[in-house]
Amino acid sequence: MESVRFTAERSSRGVVERDFTVGEVPGVLWSPASAPEQAALVLMGHGGGLHKKTPALVSRAHEMVTTWGHAVVAIDAPGHGERPVSVEDAQARAEFRHAMSEGDVARFEAVSVRYAISLAERAVPEWRATLDAVTELSEIGPDAPVGYGGGISLGTAIGLPLTAVEPRIRAAIFGGGFFVYEELMAAARRITVPVQFLLPWDDEYVDRASTLALFDAFASQEKTLHANPGDHRTIRWVGIDQEFLPRHLGRAGKAT
Amino acid sequence: MESVRFTAERSSRGVVERDFTVGEVPGVLWSPASAPEQAALVLMGHGGGLHKKTPALVSRAHEMVTTWGHAVVAIDAPGHGERPVSVEDAQARAEFRHAMSEGDVARFEAVSVRYAISLAERAVPEWRATLDAVTELSEIGPDAPVGYGGGISLGTAIGLPLTAVEPRIRAAIFGGGFFVYEELMAAARRITVPVQFLLPWDDEYVDRASTLALFDAFASQEKTLHANPGDHRTIRWVGIDQEFLPRHLGRAGKAT
Repeated sequence: MESVRFTAERSSRGVVERDFTVGEVPGVLWSPASAPEQAALVLMGHGGGLHKKTPALVSRAHEMVTTWGHAVVAIDAPGHGERPVSVEDAQARAEFRHAMSEGDVARFEAVSVRYAISLAERAVPEWRATLDAVTELSEIGPDAPVGYGGGISLGTAIGLPLTAVEPRIRAAIFGGGFFVYEELMAAARRITVPVQFLLPWDDEYVDRASTLALFDAFASQEKTLHANPGDHRTIRWVGIDQEFLPRHLGRAGKAT
Repeated sequence: MESVRFTAERSSRGVVERDFTVGEVPGVLWSPASAPEQAALVLMGHGGGLHKKTPALVSRAHEMVTTWGHAVVAIDAPGHGERPVSVEDAQARAEFRHAMSEGDVARFEAVSVRYAISLAERAVPEWRATLDAVTELSEIGPDAPVGYGGGISLGTAIGLPLTAVEPRIRAAIFGGGFFVYEELMAAARRITVPVQFLLPWDDEYVDRASTLALFDAFASQEKTLHANPGDHRTIRWVGIDQEFLPRHLGRAGKAT
């Protein structure tokens, strides 16, 4: 088993941010400066073309640490952030651009789905190895309650099959904004933990009915669909239940 | 214009409950025992076959008064609660029962829709007269911010056309659990105030797609769809944004 190797550390407003690697995979761990007795651990996915320190992700991570005392971990998806871009990654992106410039929506969908499946196949074992390694750290520990903190688009394309196979995840946030394919539907049918599903109501490319079918497919007894107008780029979320993860993972430290 | 005639008053845990009539319509007004400077006013609809003091409605009203300092008003829909049952009401109910016992879903839908339209036609002017009268009270006043507090089923079948024509309503909570018909769709297209829409995800009778089309029809820039599993009788709501109305109406008094 690979261990966490810390490579950098900085602190800001009560949050310690530590860069690390687990094997070849670079990650970042945010945790409370004053360690609580038992921190829950939130796994944060990033969107397609983005990376583990995308500003919106960092800002959500800080909020989770300071408000709920969670520890938060993010890793770069294959071909993203600090990761090398493989021949396959480069080819998929060239095909995206081509399909977009031709206005070939069917081709765009086919390439997106094939690439998402490939990324998830590689990313799921990387997340599990990261989870193994991070829960070896004394301040997290093997019994830390674990949640998946989502991210729409690629964060869900990876997080959904991860949650389907990873029994340590007790609650998960997913979202719309990407094409729905049979592998995702199959993974959703295997998920029984509480799910919060965030749907941008208007998407230029993605058929709304397919995303609603995905929400319908979760086997979870507790699941919430939350939709607001906008597509996954323009959406302004309003009134999201921010206590979804703390309610299921427990909170540590002092709420601000 | 008819005025509010108070007929009874009682107090419990910081909430004053006053029964009243406006013309022929019986209602109830809940307000903070220690009157805030400026109370927002929430109009609460009740479900089909229920009435203005249904326990769930009373409990939500108390919460709105004690948590946010709102004043809350409810009236009996025509043929409901203390109201006389007209020949039309009695006939519609007999037809319901008959359609149900025959398992005739199409007939059940046709009767439900016809009856809902008739109830809304009568209830909308009653609500507007109630609003006129209640805002004449010195502790509410003509400038009180007004919200519609919803209720699924009949509460929405009445509240939706009310909100479409009543400019004093600044924000509204509606919900699914009933058949969607063209008059409702037309009303939704005229509504531009913020909307919170609560959808029981699984309904034995109501087609989900029609309710999603209704949500889609609101012209509001801010609208939120919140769905949980269950039908309108069995649903267990989870993580609803309780601050939706206070955010748009303002809060008075002291939050508990």
